[in-house]
Amino acid sequence: MKSSLSIEAYLQLHPADLADRLQRLSTPEARAVLQQLPPATAAAVMAELEEEKAREMLGDLSNEQLSRLFRELPHHEAADLAADLPVERLGEAMSAMPPDDSTKVFQLLRYPEDTAGGIMNDRFITLRGQQTIQEAQELLRTRPEQDAGDISYLYVTDPNQKLQGIVSMRDLVFRRPERKLEEIMNRDVKFLWVDADQEEIARRFEHYHYMGLPVLERDGRLVGLVRASDVIQVAQAEATEDMQLMVGLSGEERALTPWRKSIGRRLPWLYVNLATAFLAASVVNLFEATIARWTVLAVFLPIVAGQGGNAGVQTLTIIIRDLALGEISAGDGRRALAKELMLGLMNGLSIGVVVGLGGYLWKGDWRLGLVVGIAMVLNMIAAALSGVLIPYGLKAIKIDPALASSIFLTTVTDVAGFFFFLGLAALGLKLLF
Amino acid sequence: MKSSLSIEAYLQLHPADLADRLQRLSTPEARAVLQQLPPATAAAVMAELEEEKAREMLGDLSNEQLSRLFRELPHHEAADLAADLPVERLGEAMSAMPPDDSTKVFQLLRYPEDTAGGIMNDRFITLRGQQTIQEAQELLRTRPEQDAGDISYLYVTDPNQKLQGIVSMRDLVFRRPERKLEEIMNRDVKFLWVDADQEEIARRFEHYHYMGLPVLERDGRLVGLVRASDVIQVAQAEATEDMQLMVGLSGEERALTPWRKSIGRRLPWLYVNLATAFLAASVVNLFEATIARWTVLAVFLPIVAGQGGNAGVQTLTIIIRDLALGEISAGDGRRALAKELMLGLMNGLSIGVVVGLGGYLWKGDWRLGLVVGIAMVLNMIAAALSGVLIPYGLKAIKIDPALASSIFLTTVTDVAGFFFFLGLAALGLKLLF
Repeated sequence: MKSSLSIEAYLQLHPADLADRLQRLSTPEARAVLQQLPPATAAAVMAELEEEKAREMLGDLSNEQLSRLFRELPHHEAADLAADLPVERLGEAMSAMPPDDSTKVFQLLRYPEDTAGGIMNDRFITLRGQQTIQEAQELLRTRPEQDAGDISYLYVTDPNQKLQGIVSMRDLVFRRPERKLEEIMNRDVKFLWVDADQEEIARRFEHYHYMGLPVLERDGRLVGLVRASDVIQVAQAEATEDMQLMVGLSGEERALTPWRKSIGRRLPWLYVNLATAFLAASVVNLFEATIARWTVLAVFLPIVAGQGGNAGVQTLTIIIRDLALGEISAGDGRRALAKELMLGLMNGLSIGVVVGLGGYLWKGDWRLGLVVGIAMVLNMIAAALSGVLIPYGLKAIKIDPALASSIFLTTVTDVAGFFFFLGLAALGLKLLF
Repeated sequence: MKSSLSIEAYLQLHPADLADRLQRLSTPEARAVLQQLPPATAAAVMAELEEEKAREMLGDLSNEQLSRLFRELPHHEAADLAADLPVERLGEAMSAMPPDDSTKVFQLLRYPEDTAGGIMNDRFITLRGQQTIQEAQELLRTRPEQDAGDISYLYVTDPNQKLQGIVSMRDLVFRRPERKLEEIMNRDVKFLWVDADQEEIARRFEHYHYMGLPVLERDGRLVGLVRASDVIQVAQAEATEDMQLMVGLSGEERALTPWRKSIGRRLPWLYVNLATAFLAASVVNLFEATIARWTVLAVFLPIVAGQGGNAGVQTLTIIIRDLALGEISAGDGRRALAKELMLGLMNGLSIGVVVGLGGYLWKGDWRLGLVVGIAMVLNMIAAALSGVLIPYGLKAIKIDPALASSIFLTTVTDVAGFFFFLGLAALGLKLLF
């Protein structure tokens, strides 16, 4: 895969595919290719690169190359790249742009990446309500095709750029040319506030099947457009982030991210996990005398803890994903908890009986079976409880419900599992022997 | 949330929101509401319900209600619902439809749910290349708005319905009315084969930012249209499925799925996990004599296994997600493995030193520290290895790489962890005491 192609071969590729190729080259190799591409292609490729790679490549471009690149980029792509530039280079890049463009890029730069403002583009066409269909047609004819984006709507605003209604491309074809836009426009326009969170945006697009939504500042000014095709990327990124956060990853690591970069993100959570493991171990330690008298307990320790961890992660996964998708809200916590507790009890009984019997048959000791069976039931209930409470708790204190949640969960199921099992065993040693 | 609204209040809601409300009612309550809705609204709501709920509600409708519902549904929604009906009821529902519509529904029914054919709708407008812009405009004027969908393209086909090119709505506005479509159409059309897998479709839409793609039968006939807004739903469902499959869930469970339904799906994997836990326990059992002589080993057992499990699940999560997103291909396995092994070694050394020191300081026994430290390094490497090989292996035998993969992974890290740790301890007892 690492073979470099000729520039001609690269130019045959779609910019997204070309970016994929560059992604796999070393940064100096990728930069060498980029510098040979025509500025428009180079700009399209830069817009498709992953953020980290794009940042590395920008860092090594000359000021002249940088300005040439920025002149070719759509405003929202320029803003995304500009966000990664050191301030002095940013000034350099922007000063080479026509003032009208650089103003727009600076405007977009104000919005956080994970909001409607960060996702939107400013490729939409605004008209005034007093304009006629014919005037609208003439105005459109003078605009380059890409200014209209792929959306089949035109936006009607007042002189302050406040959104008043939408007109479909269809209307331009079929309505009488002398009709005024304000007579035919649809005033019941769905929209996003510019500070809407991207997870919420993905939810709304999925729920209502929108193809695109206009984005408004809080004062009603139209500032951008979010398209369904952009939301696909957002939805995928959000899902990836949740999956990764759950297990103590950064949310942005890729399989081929160099290990030197990965280690700094993974190791801290592994140390957190280690600290919680020592906590669990200290529970075992409390009962060292019990284990010394009844060594077979050590054999069943991992079973009780492991089953609890597995069942708890099942609950956790469902709650985290449904919270992200808006399938459940804060108010559904009690119902979800009731369900999971019931499941924990029933699963616990089903597994507990088998484990208990297994323990009895394997070791020929009914007391062991009893202790391990009861501990299993109790730990499955603890697993259900923490599988619901951990994500809801994190959310309540405004932390991402996914964050390292499986690490917290297994802490609970390990500590509780060891405590139930060894505590019952200690009690059993007193009462049953 | 369970409070039933008046029908008037329900009718104020968007069908998607109304469906959400019904989803939370019991099936008889939900059916009672549905029966009071106008058929068009009822149909729109049914199309938004989750599959399972929709199936339950259909089951209790009278044949007359069923046919009224089906007459109102767009073809692709009718096909989705029809797929869940028993054959005799299907006949009933379809016979009430105009033959032209039922033929179209039957055509859509042939395609598997998770392919382009299953996702597409048939709301698109086809024209002939010999038609002029003016003729196209006139034809469009006679078609109801929803027939055009939200997409800004029209499709030019030959008499056999084979796709030849596309014309944008823009072209209809700006090109001279006497031009023929074949002169102005874009012939380089991107498309999906009807049997394309939905994961692949989500990848292509994300990669190329498509707003919609035509769907072709293998003979080149245009049979449908997939829109970016539909793909958002597909991408979310695929991500949910992967997250759930990883931990031994069905892929379709929701937080509020009744526990009686959930248990049948979760328990089997918990039993699999139990079997693997017994396997791990039997490794511990092999070394019972060692533990009896050196009880403190039991305290460190969960640390070695738990850290390995956690690190392994980090690797696993990244590989599974990147495979699903197409960030890595089958050919990247070796590079991914090299990275993870390096990370496993470095993380293992970092954690191993701390654990070893911790063991020494806590228990005042350098031999314990040495054994636990080395076991940790080895288990982290085993974790990295299995985190890559399990998903790639499942994929190689054509099973979803996510399927129960975290259960398989923790089996490896438990078994390997116990074996390394207790094996080294047994060796240590021989050599160091």
